[in-house]
Amino acid sequence: MGTLASTATPAIADRAALRDFYEDYAACLDAEDFAAFPDFFTDDTLYQVISRENHDAGLRHAPIYCSSRAMIVDRLMALKEAALYQPRSLRHFISGVRITGEEGAELHAQANFLIVESLLEQDPQVLMVGRYLDRIVRTTEGLRFAERSCVYDNYRIRTTLVIPV
Amino acid sequence: MGTLASTATPAIADRAALRDFYEDYAACLDAEDFAAFPDFFTDDTLYQVISRENHDAGLRHAPIYCSSRAMIVDRLMALKEAALYQPRSLRHFISGVRITGEEGAELHAQANFLIVESLLEQDPQVLMVGRYLDRIVRTTEGLRFAERSCVYDNYRIRTTLVIPV
Amino acid sequence: MGTLASTATPAIADRAALRDFYEDYAACLDAEDFAAFPDFFTDDTLYQVISRENHDAGLRHAPIYCSSRAMIVDRLMALKEAALYQPRSLRHFISGVRITGEEGAELHAQANFLIVESLLEQDPQVLMVGRYLDRIVRTTEGLRFAERSCVYDNYRIRTTLVIPV
Repeated sequence: MGTLASTATPAIADRAALRDFYEDYAACLDAEDFAAFPDFFTDDTLYQVISRENHDAGLRHAPIYCSSRAMIVDRLMALKEAALYQPRSLRHFISGVRITGEEGAELHAQANFLIVESLLEQDPQVLMVGRYLDRIVRTTEGLRFAERSCVYDNYRIRTTLVIPV
Repeated sequence: MGTLASTATPAIADRAALRDFYEDYAACLDAEDFAAFPDFFTDDTLYQVISRENHDAGLRHAPIYCSSRAMIVDRLMALKEAALYQPRSLRHFISGVRITGEEGAELHAQANFLIVESLLEQDPQVLMVGRYLDRIVRTTEGLRFAERSCVYDNYRIRTTLVIPV
Repeated sequence: MGTLASTATPAIADRAALRDFYEDYAACLDAEDFAAFPDFFTDDTLYQVISRENHDAGLRHAPIYCSSRAMIVDRLMALKEAALYQPRSLRHFISGVRITGEEGAELHAQANFLIVESLLEQDPQVLMVGRYLDRIVRTTEGLRFAERSCVYDNYRIRTTLVIPV
């Protein structure tokens, strides 16, 4: 099997680097490290959390829509002020990280996400499931999202959801 | 830690290539790209979706049993004609991709799968969980399943299940 | 994109080796291969399964607490004698494997785990979700856990839980 990966090694290495980037992002959210979160994005990033229904219909209505890194910072600030009324833990599970295209220095990629929520006095449950659809650029500081659309499959989401996905 | 992977690099590269193959397969199903699906298999493949109970008892009774790539194509055609009565989204989560043996050009491998289903007016739920048990060959077009058994742990599956896993 | 991974290759290879190690561990538990399980640990390992609440408060109270490899062996022996009253399947899903620090030959690492349980006459459900917090050493036989804390988010766990996580 020493030759299994031989013809594809650079692509496999790229995909491994991408998987690491996705998992660092997820770990940042699980740790609620909101100070570090904006660093995953470019200055003029587009970041949104949108239902599959609206996404597929080409609609813009989305629970979270940020058209710059500064808007993400504002959003997180508001979130901090609103505070969380109850202790809870979120865990991200990422699978299927794939490079779907390349345009110059940009990379198009996607992955599945599953977020499991644990609340007091309740069993853990699936909070959200869906896909990341991304454009990623390589900067001198490492990979950054030029665009990240978190497209969730849930029919509805609880209105208290204000956190990034 | 620069030497952590040093003695095992070829095996790690193989496993990474295998993980990518598994995730491409899963993404194909999540996208309902049934035209591309048969290309993951050899012509004389064995593809089945079978309960753990029957698999462990050596029984052949399985909701899906295809003894060739052509049978998979037929199965998908029937599926297309039956159509899906309601919109839904499926997401695969693959974990634990492992090479369990080698026989000449063949690779024995396995992984865990979790499929989360989102239906209209319902919260997402676990549709199916289990293991892939596989024999994989390297062809000039890339890796292909010579055998894929999808062994699910579910006690029962809803009878409407006709799609590949 | 041929240069995406170029500056980080050794780190990526280490992380891939680590991911493989984590997945071998999970596969061992899913297969209920309790004879092989202690081999993932050093002789003077610390292995515990503890709630997030107690862990964050610095408390020691934990459903499983083993301060050596020998204690793990004892624990598994007791488990074997107690036997399992009903057939069930467990599947681990590991995501977010990350190296968080290094101290000499030791590696600090973490990952998320999700365990899905399938019982007779029931639909599969999330049994446990949480984080692995680990210290790992490289030995002549491969990687080993010098410390593994399985920190679960669940508010409560069913009292019948006696198995390793």
